Amino acid sequence: MSSSLPGLDVTHDPRLRSWVASAGDASGFPLQNLPFGIVAARRGDTGAGEPHGAVRIGDEVLDLRRLAASGLLQGPALAAAEAAGAGTLNAFFELGAGPRRALRAALHGLLVEGAAHQAAVAPFLTPAASVENLLPASIGDYTDFYVGIHHAVNVGAIFRPDNPLLPNYKWVPIGYHGRASSVTVSGTPFRRPNGQLKMPDGGEPVFAPTRRLDFELELGVWLGPSTRLGESVAIDQAEDHVAGLCLLNDWSARDVQAWEYQPLGPFLAKNFATTVSPWVVTPEALAPYRVAMCRPEGDPAPLPYLDSAQHRAAGGIDIELDVLLSTAKMRNAGEAPLLVSRSSTRHMYWSIAQMVTHHTSNGCDLRAGDLLGSGTLSAPGPGGLGSLLEITRGGTEPFGLPNGQTRTFLQDGDEVTLRARARRDGAATIGFGECAAIVQPATHRST
Amino acid sequence: MSSSLPGLDVTHDPRLRSWVASAGDASGFPLQNLPFGIVAARRGDTGAGEPHGAVRIGDEVLDLRRLAASGLLQGPALAAAEAAGAGTLNAFFELGAGPRRALRAALHGLLVEGAAHQAAVAPFLTPAASVENLLPASIGDYTDFYVGIHHAVNVGAIFRPDNPLLPNYKWVPIGYHGRASSVTVSGTPFRRPNGQLKMPDGGEPVFAPTRRLDFELELGVWLGPSTRLGESVAIDQAEDHVAGLCLLNDWSARDVQAWEYQPLGPFLAKNFATTVSPWVVTPEALAPYRVAMCRPEGDPAPLPYLDSAQHRAAGGIDIELDVLLSTAKMRNAGEAPLLVSRSSTRHMYWSIAQMVTHHTSNGCDLRAGDLLGSGTLSAPGPGGLGSLLEITRGGTEPFGLPNGQTRTFLQDGDEVTLRARARRDGAATIGFGECAAIVQPATHRST
Repeated sequence: MSSSLPGLDVTHDPRLRSWVASAGDASGFPLQNLPFGIVAARRGDTGAGEPHGAVRIGDEVLDLRRLAASGLLQGPALAAAEAAGAGTLNAFFELGAGPRRALRAALHGLLVEGAAHQAAVAPFLTPAASVENLLPASIGDYTDFYVGIHHAVNVGAIFRPDNPLLPNYKWVPIGYHGRASSVTVSGTPFRRPNGQLKMPDGGEPVFAPTRRLDFELELGVWLGPSTRLGESVAIDQAEDHVAGLCLLNDWSARDVQAWEYQPLGPFLAKNFATTVSPWVVTPEALAPYRVAMCRPEGDPAPLPYLDSAQHRAAGGIDIELDVLLSTAKMRNAGEAPLLVSRSSTRHMYWSIAQMVTHHTSNGCDLRAGDLLGSGTLSAPGPGGLGSLLEITRGGTEPFGLPNGQTRTFLQDGDEVTLRARARRDGAATIGFGECAAIVQPATHRST
Repeated sequence: MSSSLPGLDVTHDPRLRSWVASAGDASGFPLQNLPFGIVAARRGDTGAGEPHGAVRIGDEVLDLRRLAASGLLQGPALAAAEAAGAGTLNAFFELGAGPRRALRAALHGLLVEGAAHQAAVAPFLTPAASVENLLPASIGDYTDFYVGIHHAVNVGAIFRPDNPLLPNYKWVPIGYHGRASSVTVSGTPFRRPNGQLKMPDGGEPVFAPTRRLDFELELGVWLGPSTRLGESVAIDQAEDHVAGLCLLNDWSARDVQAWEYQPLGPFLAKNFATTVSPWVVTPEALAPYRVAMCRPEGDPAPLPYLDSAQHRAAGGIDIELDVLLSTAKMRNAGEAPLLVSRSSTRHMYWSIAQMVTHHTSNGCDLRAGDLLGSGTLSAPGPGGLGSLLEITRGGTEPFGLPNGQTRTFLQDGDEVTLRARARRDGAATIGFGECAAIVQPATHRST
């Protein structure tokens, strides 16, 4: 049984445009993207409207609940729109690739320039600015991987200069369980966490707000359909369980992490907040941007359960990733955020398919709506580091901002924004929207 | 604001008995216990009935859905029974201690010998053997702690003979995130997991069924009501968020764990299966069995956020814990399971309240239905070790079974059963039911 990886079809044709005027390439949401999400109308004092599924097109969102009730869809596309019209995308993710592709094709047909049903569809569009984005799915479990090999080397070098990469790294797609409850959607501020900090003076630990608050630039992966407990997903079927991608910021308290992580891994250093971008960019939309995997010549071949000819041919994905920083002072002065890093998903040492197959290789089940993180995706060069820990070499080398401020780690009021785009000659440029949050002051707590 | 820890009242009076004939002390489920769970009628070929909440009394289960509809309950007890009558206990856990205590008092009044409504209640009882037990709640997140200090020392001594206990242990209630999806209720068999194994010969890892499958004897903690993201629970309010306790077996593949766990902790070595006992034993039922905490003289005092006079006075809990092993050959010969370990929850270095407070100390939110594990609870002596890793000293010292079989780690067909009881002079003896599962053979997978 071989998987049906999404091929290139009319929905990728860069010459076709939408009749939605704002849906140019620069929007990130042209006709070739069509990502799914959950939105609710902003209603000022009366609170938000009912959450429902939507598709982003240009600066507009298309209400899938109303589209499903319109009579404009039939068959699997209708079933998919009905599932996606609900208050979360879990049921839509459970349907899998077939209905999702049918809905994508139908949406393309309805939104393309010259579509017959333009007048019938137009009333289902709302300005994106008039809706609130919500978490796309109810997350059953969230697993964070560590597939950014340059990050692993950079961080390892800080702690183990002679032996930065552990011996298991090139064999095992290293991952660990994260916290699902504290994953929030872009735009949700979070408090600087308190935690136990052990000072270098060797004294007793104190309980205080973290002094080494960091971001981590990651790719997020929404899963579905579900798998069954006790069953494994072969590498060639792994992408059948990927519902789509997003951006993910795995906020980290480095001082808490350093003191707590032995022997069972990060816990309170990570689980106070994880931010995701609101739009689920589908595997179909990303089909034009596949690239060869980054495994260098001479590295061990993956064990057979993580390898196949089809998998090697399918390769990885090249999504350009940006990290932008804006301090409260910069925002107050109307200054633009500073680009502090530019990386790419092509630096993943293990593919999304390998993450899925490894995760289920022991029989662990995945559920529709589960979320994976890639781990921090740093590029090899100095301009592509995915965390402040790497940029400031463990906090020893502060960097300056254009307004004269400096940073080693994040200060209260700082906003970190992740952005991404996939582009290629002969293909449209598609975006992910923003993954952003502002650091709020810690609650006052005595130690 | 101080918490209202459950006190002793008429529901604990050991002289009072239930009119349910099987509800003697030996049953584990006398009138003084009254644990909650989710059951569904067994219906042979036609499948199971609809899941609903129930209370265990002796060898019977009392249907809370039917009781709630009977008109026998009022006020908070009725609200609690209505919530607990649903297909999961999440809404019941969300209600918190007040309604739970009201329902406990009402159930005691209905089930005590001489109760006026015996004839009205009797039809809501069903033999426990005629129902299937289901998972008590839909688990949002599962966190496993490491509060069994003797286990931490024993395991540390295998890997670091000179320095068994890491420097953070007596300061930080160490924990990490587990996998919620693969938590199953007692009686659910699971497959021996495949995984990457690194042989001591130093060659390349292979992908094969684990050869070092182990159990871990743990206490489980069901949480509720929920807390809010960004808020912390003070130590004196922590027990207000405990809905009840169960037994938990954190099955572990030691060879997979040894190879994968650096630097982010256990992952596939643990997430293939976690088994819990079906009944949620309430804090109220456990009120008579509090004991002083085990923190030895000379150890550092907990940091202030983990300490209070009330917390020190409340202490820990003394629940006797047993591990029993039965091989397929023993069961086929009709031989009784072998008691391989007897320990107690009094060996927890950190209390349940400290686990809850630490978990939320960075603002991480807890949701009703979340599950905590205590970590392996070994007693100091050789007869009280909570894992085969400890019993066989890392697999180097096999032990014999009465029928001549030997074990270092678990073989296919082995069944591990956890049992527990709380007892004290002048109080009833209450049980937890069984936490049991049988190891099934691995699926055949090439490496």
